[in-house]
Amino acid sequence: MKLKIAVLPGDGIGPEIMDQALKVTRAVCEKFNHEVTFTEAIVGACAIDAVGDPYPPETHEVCMQADAVLFGAIGHPKFDNDPNARVRPEQGLLRMRKQLGLYGNIRPVMTFPSLIHKSPLRADLVEGADFVCIRELTGGMYFGRPQGRSEDGDTAYDTCVYTREEIERILHLAYKFAGQRRKKLTVVDKANVIATSRLWRQIAQEIAPQYPDIETDYLFVDNAAMRIIQWPKSFDVLVTENLFGDILTDEASVITGSLGMLPSASIGIHTSLFEPIHGSYPQATGKNIANPAAMILSAALMFEYAFNLQEEGAAIRRAVNASLEAGVVTEDIAEGGKAYGTSEVGDWIAEYIKSS
Amino acid sequence: MKLKIAVLPGDGIGPEIMDQALKVTRAVCEKFNHEVTFTEAIVGACAIDAVGDPYPPETHEVCMQADAVLFGAIGHPKFDNDPNARVRPEQGLLRMRKQLGLYGNIRPVMTFPSLIHKSPLRADLVEGADFVCIRELTGGMYFGRPQGRSEDGDTAYDTCVYTREEIERILHLAYKFAGQRRKKLTVVDKANVIATSRLWRQIAQEIAPQYPDIETDYLFVDNAAMRIIQWPKSFDVLVTENLFGDILTDEASVITGSLGMLPSASIGIHTSLFEPIHGSYPQATGKNIANPAAMILSAALMFEYAFNLQEEGAAIRRAVNASLEAGVVTEDIAEGGKAYGTSEVGDWIAEYIKSS
Ligand SMILES: CC(C)[C@H](C(=O)O)[C@@H](O)C(=O)O
Ligand SMILES: CC(C)[C@H](C(=O)O)[C@@H](O)C(=O)O
Repeated sequence: MKLKIAVLPGDGIGPEIMDQALKVTRAVCEKFNHEVTFTEAIVGACAIDAVGDPYPPETHEVCMQADAVLFGAIGHPKFDNDPNARVRPEQGLLRMRKQLGLYGNIRPVMTFPSLIHKSPLRADLVEGADFVCIRELTGGMYFGRPQGRSEDGDTAYDTCVYTREEIERILHLAYKFAGQRRKKLTVVDKANVIATSRLWRQIAQEIAPQYPDIETDYLFVDNAAMRIIQWPKSFDVLVTENLFGDILTDEASVITGSLGMLPSASIGIHTSLFEPIHGSYPQATGKNIANPAAMILSAALMFEYAFNLQEEGAAIRRAVNASLEAGVVTEDIAEGGKAYGTSEVGDWIAEYIKSS
Repeated sequence: MKLKIAVLPGDGIGPEIMDQALKVTRAVCEKFNHEVTFTEAIVGACAIDAVGDPYPPETHEVCMQADAVLFGAIGHPKFDNDPNARVRPEQGLLRMRKQLGLYGNIRPVMTFPSLIHKSPLRADLVEGADFVCIRELTGGMYFGRPQGRSEDGDTAYDTCVYTREEIERILHLAYKFAGQRRKKLTVVDKANVIATSRLWRQIAQEIAPQYPDIETDYLFVDNAAMRIIQWPKSFDVLVTENLFGDILTDEASVITGSLGMLPSASIGIHTSLFEPIHGSYPQATGKNIANPAAMILSAALMFEYAFNLQEEGAAIRRAVNASLEAGVVTEDIAEGGKAYGTSEVGDWIAEYIKSS
């Protein structure tokens, strides 16, 4: 197969972890006989520095031409605590999501047995937790207009908007995932207070009968925030709107204790994008200490979701698990034993794939 | 002192736990020589059943005449999963908050040593956790207009609005709390995406210099959702807007493992209101098994915040702690030993106050 991949390393540790994902992707393509081309482009703070735009038109073009996008991380401390800065890296991220139509953000929440003790939760609550959070990514308050200030600057307003089309699209995606898993979908909203949530729930109740083999249940977002901690194993697939998803997926990401291991996928209209859930980790930049696993597992999701190449994805997963078992891991998860560098972990995983 | 208290038992277990809080309040007033009058009124599902209105004008009048309101819980399963029902108990709650000007919801998050093992978190992370969540309660998306549907019903919209006045008021309240505690305030927003949050952050940055002895820091809401679990002890006072507060305060309430023990206060313009953070717990209704501690500790907050009677509040706290130590507790927290009924726990605590 011919695979055209856009490569957006971004800021901070982005380039370092991306190098490892590319090594691994190359190893997989060699082994399974795929022809791969990588086209690199800039995004985030480094793009602001280079051309004054966090998501330049050239980068967008590269993504539009690609079958899949590998994305590192963006953000730089110099933009922190200045929410009024004229140009910010996040604006690039949001424009990218909108322009590529990346409507469905998928975050598998899984535990790695050897890392359970890192969880802030009691081991008995997280052992075996395995669910997927699906966040609508191009609607809601992130993009609703009007947004702004009154003339005198003393009143601010945001608008949350959802259309039937947007809600149906993400719910069908969520049902598709639930159908391939334990067949349980939890729709999270705040239908007891807001109108957009009432539309979500109405449409979910309309669609549910189309999936008779899937159990649908409904949770208010505040209850969901509790349940994720109290009983993570009660979830299979959770679906929610953009801002609730921002909060709940981050909450869910810390319960398994393996933040540096968790990948994500954003399913889109024009292409799909794959990125680790962690940030650009500026303090670690250039030190060869960042954990490349989440980025490498994002490449696994790319093989599975963008190219429907399940075996290739499985090969990456096996290699990452083997690296954990062999203790070839970075300092964030090394326990007692020796910590390896970012590129050593990448080399080891790529080698494992080639030689197995 | 003369204390005029409005009593709104509400639905489900509300009346049962309220009885215990009234016993305890009477005991305190007897001991400290206060003259107390209770005026009862209906609210919630029972008010819908009785008069078709979850917050009838008569109830509002009773609250307006009172120095403080004791509130049980509202909600009934028959209103669940029908977000489009014409009249809902929650509407009463929201109207009550707005009409009484209850702008600041205060939730102390504290651990009880004997209950730490009930926490879903590792004991080392929660032991000694002690912070206060302050949620703005009368602004934001809960009350912003326009809210509704397009003509064809296929688009829904909500509006989030905040004014300088609303933000300044809640921030000053939060600084007041921080000043009386460990002098650290965390302002939680989503200033990297939404306009109302940018106004929050701007105003917080303007106000912070007025409180030079208090350390102010800022967290995005998604980061806060992570940090609450990863490192609860890093918080002293957390302040945020209405909807973020709904989610984060519920998240925070489960980390200590003592949901049935946590009280809350809502500071208002016309009066203040005190209620447990748990709900109406329909399954337990009438069984004399509900834990009255959160309601009783809400009465303690009433003495402290509404009447500035610190010793009276402290007497209630001591009595509740003594009941824990003596094992006079309801089944939700009874461990191995005997479980007591709701009213037995209330009697014991009231007696302890009178006789100590
Ligand atoms: C950086 C920010 C705009 C972004 C979001 O809120 O979507 C981030 O938190 C995320 O979840 O990808
Ligand atoms: C019942 C609901 C309207 C309410 C809210 O969202 O404020 C509740 O969740 C709360 O936190 O008191």
